[in-house]
Amino acid sequence: MQGQAQQQAYDRGITIFSPDGRLYQVEYAREAVKRGTASIGVRTDEGVVLAADKRSRSPLMEPASVEKLHKADDHVGIASAGHVADARQLIDFARRQAQVNRLRYGEPMGIETLTKTITDHIQQYTQVGGARPFGVALIIGGIENGRPRLFETDPSGTPYEWKALSIGANRTDVRDYLEEGYEDELGLEDGIELALGALAEANEEGLEPEGVGLATIEAEEPQYVDHGVERIEGYLSEFGYLAEDAEESEDDDGSEEAE
Amino acid sequence: MQGQAQQQAYDRGITIFSPDGRLYQVEYAREAVKRGTASIGVRTDEGVVLAADKRSRSPLMEPASVEKLHKADDHVGIASAGHVADARQLIDFARRQAQVNRLRYGEPMGIETLTKTITDHIQQYTQVGGARPFGVALIIGGIENGRPRLFETDPSGTPYEWKALSIGANRTDVRDYLEEGYEDELGLEDGIELALGALAEANEEGLEPEGVGLATIEAEEPQYVDHGVERIEGYLSEFGYLAEDAEESEDDDGSEEAE
Amino acid sequence: MQGQAQQQAYDRGITIFSPDGRLYQVEYAREAVKRGTASIGVRTDEGVVLAADKRSRSPLMEPASVEKLHKADDHVGIASAGHVADARQLIDFARRQAQVNRLRYGEPMGIETLTKTITDHIQQYTQVGGARPFGVALIIGGIENGRPRLFETDPSGTPYEWKALSIGANRTDVRDYLEEGYEDELGLEDGIELALGALAEANEEGLEPEGVGLATIEAEEPQYVDHGVERIEGYLSEFGYLAEDAEESEDDDGSEEAE
Amino acid sequence: MQGQAQQQAYDRGITIFSPDGRLYQVEYAREAVKRGTASIGVRTDEGVVLAADKRSRSPLMEPASVEKLHKADDHVGIASAGHVADARQLIDFARRQAQVNRLRYGEPMGIETLTKTITDHIQQYTQVGGARPFGVALIIGGIENGRPRLFETDPSGTPYEWKALSIGANRTDVRDYLEEGYEDELGLEDGIELALGALAEANEEGLEPEGVGLATIEAEEPQYVDHGVERIEGYLSEFGYLAEDAEESEDDDGSEEAE
Amino acid sequence: MQGQAQQQAYDRGITIFSPDGRLYQVEYAREAVKRGTASIGVRTDEGVVLAADKRSRSPLMEPASVEKLHKADDHVGIASAGHVADARQLIDFARRQAQVNRLRYGEPMGIETLTKTITDHIQQYTQVGGARPFGVALIIGGIENGRPRLFETDPSGTPYEWKALSIGANRTDVRDYLEEGYEDELGLEDGIELALGALAEANEEGLEPEGVGLATIEAEEPQYVDHGVERIEGYLSEFGYLAEDAEESEDDDGSEEAE
Amino acid sequence: MQGQAQQQAYDRGITIFSPDGRLYQVEYAREAVKRGTASIGVRTDEGVVLAADKRSRSPLMEPASVEKLHKADDHVGIASAGHVADARQLIDFARRQAQVNRLRYGEPMGIETLTKTITDHIQQYTQVGGARPFGVALIIGGIENGRPRLFETDPSGTPYEWKALSIGANRTDVRDYLEEGYEDELGLEDGIELALGALAEANEEGLEPEGVGLATIEAEEPQYVDHGVERIEGYLSEFGYLAEDAEESEDDDGSEEAE
Amino acid sequence: MQGQAQQQAYDRGITIFSPDGRLYQVEYAREAVKRGTASIGVRTDEGVVLAADKRSRSPLMEPASVEKLHKADDHVGIASAGHVADARQLIDFARRQAQVNRLRYGEPMGIETLTKTITDHIQQYTQVGGARPFGVALIIGGIENGRPRLFETDPSGTPYEWKALSIGANRTDVRDYLEEGYEDELGLEDGIELALGALAEANEEGLEPEGVGLATIEAEEPQYVDHGVERIEGYLSEFGYLAEDAEESEDDDGSEEAE
Repeated sequence: MQGQAQQQAYDRGITIFSPDGRLYQVEYAREAVKRGTASIGVRTDEGVVLAADKRSRSPLMEPASVEKLHKADDHVGIASAGHVADARQLIDFARRQAQVNRLRYGEPMGIETLTKTITDHIQQYTQVGGARPFGVALIIGGIENGRPRLFETDPSGTPYEWKALSIGANRTDVRDYLEEGYEDELGLEDGIELALGALAEANEEGLEPEGVGLATIEAEEPQYVDHGVERIEGYLSEFGYLAEDAEESEDDDGSEEAE
Repeated sequence: MQGQAQQQAYDRGITIFSPDGRLYQVEYAREAVKRGTASIGVRTDEGVVLAADKRSRSPLMEPASVEKLHKADDHVGIASAGHVADARQLIDFARRQAQVNRLRYGEPMGIETLTKTITDHIQQYTQVGGARPFGVALIIGGIENGRPRLFETDPSGTPYEWKALSIGANRTDVRDYLEEGYEDELGLEDGIELALGALAEANEEGLEPEGVGLATIEAEEPQYVDHGVERIEGYLSEFGYLAEDAEESEDDDGSEEAE
Repeated sequence: MQGQAQQQAYDRGITIFSPDGRLYQVEYAREAVKRGTASIGVRTDEGVVLAADKRSRSPLMEPASVEKLHKADDHVGIASAGHVADARQLIDFARRQAQVNRLRYGEPMGIETLTKTITDHIQQYTQVGGARPFGVALIIGGIENGRPRLFETDPSGTPYEWKALSIGANRTDVRDYLEEGYEDELGLEDGIELALGALAEANEEGLEPEGVGLATIEAEEPQYVDHGVERIEGYLSEFGYLAEDAEESEDDDGSEEAE
Repeated sequence: MQGQAQQQAYDRGITIFSPDGRLYQVEYAREAVKRGTASIGVRTDEGVVLAADKRSRSPLMEPASVEKLHKADDHVGIASAGHVADARQLIDFARRQAQVNRLRYGEPMGIETLTKTITDHIQQYTQVGGARPFGVALIIGGIENGRPRLFETDPSGTPYEWKALSIGANRTDVRDYLEEGYEDELGLEDGIELALGALAEANEEGLEPEGVGLATIEAEEPQYVDHGVERIEGYLSEFGYLAEDAEESEDDDGSEEAE
Repeated sequence: MQGQAQQQAYDRGITIFSPDGRLYQVEYAREAVKRGTASIGVRTDEGVVLAADKRSRSPLMEPASVEKLHKADDHVGIASAGHVADARQLIDFARRQAQVNRLRYGEPMGIETLTKTITDHIQQYTQVGGARPFGVALIIGGIENGRPRLFETDPSGTPYEWKALSIGANRTDVRDYLEEGYEDELGLEDGIELALGALAEANEEGLEPEGVGLATIEAEEPQYVDHGVERIEGYLSEFGYLAEDAEESEDDDGSEEAE
Repeated sequence: MQGQAQQQAYDRGITIFSPDGRLYQVEYAREAVKRGTASIGVRTDEGVVLAADKRSRSPLMEPASVEKLHKADDHVGIASAGHVADARQLIDFARRQAQVNRLRYGEPMGIETLTKTITDHIQQYTQVGGARPFGVALIIGGIENGRPRLFETDPSGTPYEWKALSIGANRTDVRDYLEEGYEDELGLEDGIELALGALAEANEEGLEPEGVGLATIEAEEPQYVDHGVERIEGYLSEFGYLAEDAEESEDDDGSEEAE
Repeated sequence: MQGQAQQQAYDRGITIFSPDGRLYQVEYAREAVKRGTASIGVRTDEGVVLAADKRSRSPLMEPASVEKLHKADDHVGIASAGHVADARQLIDFARRQAQVNRLRYGEPMGIETLTKTITDHIQQYTQVGGARPFGVALIIGGIENGRPRLFETDPSGTPYEWKALSIGANRTDVRDYLEEGYEDELGLEDGIELALGALAEANEEGLEPEGVGLATIEAEEPQYVDHGVERIEGYLSEFGYLAEDAEESEDDDGSEEAE
């Protein structure tokens, strides 16, 4: 058993190993990810689907400014969960990498290569002193040589490839949902249904169109598409996930940081 | 529950994660913002309104030297709340960015781009060691391609877009007021009324013209206008927010830092 | 309530935020200012008046070497309170800035611009690690385009403009005195009377000519004038502030640092 | 005896000696290796065999993305156990070294030379401040001048050469198994059987083809071969190590980091 | 009251402010000065007198190697008290400054300018991290444009001008002696008598010629003169300060550092 | 007596003095040396003998990979005890020095010069911050101008010259053995007998050829010779040090680091 | 009285002042000097004598490798006491300085100048962070313009000139012996007798020729001469300091560091 007092000793300095071989700062950064609202990724035969819970804290906030889905390049989208400002740094890093790749090789960057360039960057912040780890997880989805691919990066800098996954709040429940619902030959529309269903699973209050982000990249003609509110409303209504009368979240200060 | 003793462990060193994934130095910087007097931003169809509580601590202090509203460029104004000296650094940073953009591209910098350049700058101070976070929040309002836009930056480096918002003291109460009073097709004059009303909400002692800052940027012809005392007195009187016999705040030393 | 033990945690490392959003090192630096003897600034229509308590610790010490009033440029004077050696650094910084401005633009530097250049310099020492804040406050008075102006800088790096102010010991009492005595259309002689009166207020032991510093800059022909002992004695006698039989301060070691 | 309280003292700062001459951060990094799933290396007369436990946490995760076996060059493979993101850094380092060697000398890099270049790199992270040790062990196997060779690197930066070894979970048990089963004139097929048997020993739940990695490099024509699921299934079935009805591991968050 | 436990908190790190605005490291450096044997400076109309207690710890030690009086330039002498090795650094700094001034401007450096160059150097060590303050005070005496001048530097980096002063052991008593004995129109001989009398006051054991340093710089023809033992014996005998039968100080190790 | 609690204070930071003038980090590094298995050096008239306990932890480990004896140059061999990875750094350093010397001066480097170059390098790690001391001792033996010489380096960076010495486990017992057995006019064969006898003294379990390293450099024709297993078996058998039925050491993890 | 607990606070960080103005790290470094065996210096009219206790820990250790006396240049010798590896750094520094001086000015470096160059170097390690002080004292003896001179450097970086002195173990006793025995017009032979007598005083076990170092530099023809064992035996026998039957010191590990 690992007592409270002993644990404290390992998180004051910069990231170091605990006696049982753990890196507490990295594990605490994972907690920052869990504090964020959920994002979902689903890989289908026809393309990649990214969905995110992007409810805003107030009706006066522009929904578009809640950044959960990002276009990294024509053929790559990224969904994030956790510390928003950290996510922005990694997204910018990803965009620059993709752009440099296009300039240098005249072709779109591979999704796996892009992911691993990002995770190597993340790892440096867990080993070398003078900075804290990134408090954010990413879902990187895109088309590589006509094939949809879907990756995850976590705060330790480990890359994983998934058929479907969720990051952020309620991860375990949503994964059960995805494992149950996933089949091997999904169409894009099926993927959207699965992703929105998973999002509804993560969110007890039901979904409202303004609070949902949805992006797709089709395999045939790779183009990042961020779907508008009407379209999302259509999908939610079609699949029966539309909230009846959602309460506004009133709690402000505690949950600002991680979305 | 997070005990007092444990909490202490995470704020001595430079910004690191706590076991529940929070960045205490960033959260404490948010407290510095709350200690500041309120600033308000309202976006209307005709332009952007910035208002601020700029009461001075003594009748001998020049009201103009209480810096809450700043012109960043012809088409952009910035209101701040929190640590004044920190705000000055960010304002200067914003001005230089706007100026460089004009020189390089021959056109005014986009409000969203400007905001994100600032938040990226803020984020660095929360991740890399050797400095503390900025103890200030900003409202950045301006005209982008003829369209009024209104953003917030917080000490974590997260950008948000708003229709109307307040930062600084009594934020929750003022937001309720703004949410109630905001309508979608406001004129500039309506926006001024709403902003001053919100300011009155934040300030139990009533408003005096010398203690209020008011700036507007109209969409038609983007030009930052800092309104004078007479004009403000006129508005306050017109909308019924003029204090009858304001008490001078006598408390000096505790509240100097954050305004 | 903020307990003693908790407070200690925030002042060991370099300047960081406390849980309630305060920067203790900056607040402690303000205490160093309060430990210093008083300096006064008064703005009149005809010019600026600076006065300072510059009693020396021994009759063998040269009064002129107690540095409280400094000429920064022909048109700018600076009075300080707090850590003397820190003050010297800022005064030198101010002089170089003023000199560079004259060389580059061929005209005297604006008082507000000079003040803000200094406060930006001060702010850096409160945010970036590796140094402590400056333990000194300054009154910067001068003539800008024929108009007398009077500013304050504090250890946080915040600039304020005043009609009349005091820094250092007994600040609150002296401010009350200034607020009561200040009127809007003072002549230079009136300003000298007010400043010396305020100084007498700060100093229970009465004033002696050798222990008082007095400098003026007239708006008509901006020239920093440091008044001699005879002149000061004349003013003190004229206004009735001359001490009858001042005791020498015998206490040596505890109060050396801050003047 | 070394008490708990005393031990704490040596792991807060950067890697330093304890009173009994131990480097706790290095020993804790070894614990990170033990937390990882097992990897096996077997040297036979005909070539080198690398095997690894690469069960994924979910049926939705792509087995190929669980990185345990890596091609470093045509003639060198590397198996890892411990912190995945750290392993990636060392693998990349190894690849660059092998590539540079080929470019500079026109021939494949020696396995011993490559190993020692890596361990020197690892050692630096245990002596010089500003970073933590690598939390990973590697098995480096390859062909050098027609001769199969098999090395281990540990977190202290010490190289060892082995006939057969395991790293990661259940190391002691697996070593007993390998010592019992190893003979001096094994063929490649024998080596595969021994390696998979050792892996089965490390894994109480039995082996499933998707959860096993298997790579070989033959001495005759050195070429790193990563065997596919069908082939692995064939071997498992042939040698009787196929699990009957493996339970999925449901435990998610605690064991993500080290694989 | 400032308790022991709280005080400890402020002297571990580099020089920072205590809650009451003090810099403990600077105050402790002043204690190092007090631990040193006394040095005296007297300004007369005809020149400057420096005297110092330079008793050696053993009859085998060369009196000349107890460094208390130093020639900085032809027209400047420096007496020190406190940490000897620190004094040497500042003396070297002073010599280089004086030399550079002569080379650059072809004339001797002003005493006030030299003093302030030294105090600025000292101040840096009290504000910027990575070093401790200088544990030494200096008396800088010399001739500037035919006029004798006498300055003090303390560990905070503050310059003071004096008619007569002492630094080091028994400062308060010696100052009383100097205040009583000082008159405004002293000749050089009078100054020597006063200085030696003050030194005798600081030294309960009486003065021996070998244990006294005496240097003078005359205003007429500025030339640093370090008086020899015979001359000093003559003065001591003339003024009645010669010890009858001085005991040797036997205590060795505790008091080596500061002289 | 030096209590446990006080001792702790001096090993957290980088190498500093304890109140009784000791450098604990250096002394702890010496403990790391004692944890290592023994190495022996014997100087004879005909050449230098190096012997080492290099038992491996498992029959599957290649004995050759237990690095205890190293060729630094044709005429110099080095035996180590302690932290293996640290030893490798110093051996590499020694090799580069010897190589540079040959290139620059066209002749083999002197053994004493080489030793002192190494100890100077070691000393730096005990005085300058940012790294820990080397946890290893070396025996450096070689031929200088036809004369056999034998040196020791310890973790403090002190060089010693010996006729015969041991480093690592059981040092005191082995020294007694060497002092008793050493005579002034030994031949090389005598030296081998003495070295192996000392090794047997250090190792209660008896010696096995695979667990012994033996190297010689003859004075006549300086050439580092690492003797093979057969030869060693011959010597052991000849001198009666062959173990009858050695038990394998089963204890794995605790003793890996230092050999 | 200075309690144990308080004292601890000042030796963890880098060298800083204690509340009573002491530098503990420097005082602890002096303890390291006291732990070393004694070295003696005697200045005579005919030249300088250096003597040192250089007993080795074992009959197998080469007496010549116990470094206590060092030739710095033809006309300068240095004896050390304390941390051997630190001494080596300073000796090398001294040699380089002496060599550079010869190259640059074509003449031998003055002994006082050399000493002060070394003490300035030592002082830096007591004021600037990132390193510990040198744990060694030196006796620097040589001929300057035909005149013998003898200096001491201590860990604070203070230079002293002596007629005769000892450093290292039993300093107080040996100083008494030297003070009693020293006369002003000693010849070189007298100086040797005094130095060896002082060494015998420091060493209760009597002197053996192999355990004594003796070097002289004559004023007439300055040449550092390190006397051999036979000569030393002659002197010891002549002066009656030869031990009858010296016990070997058996205690090994505790006293290795300082000699």
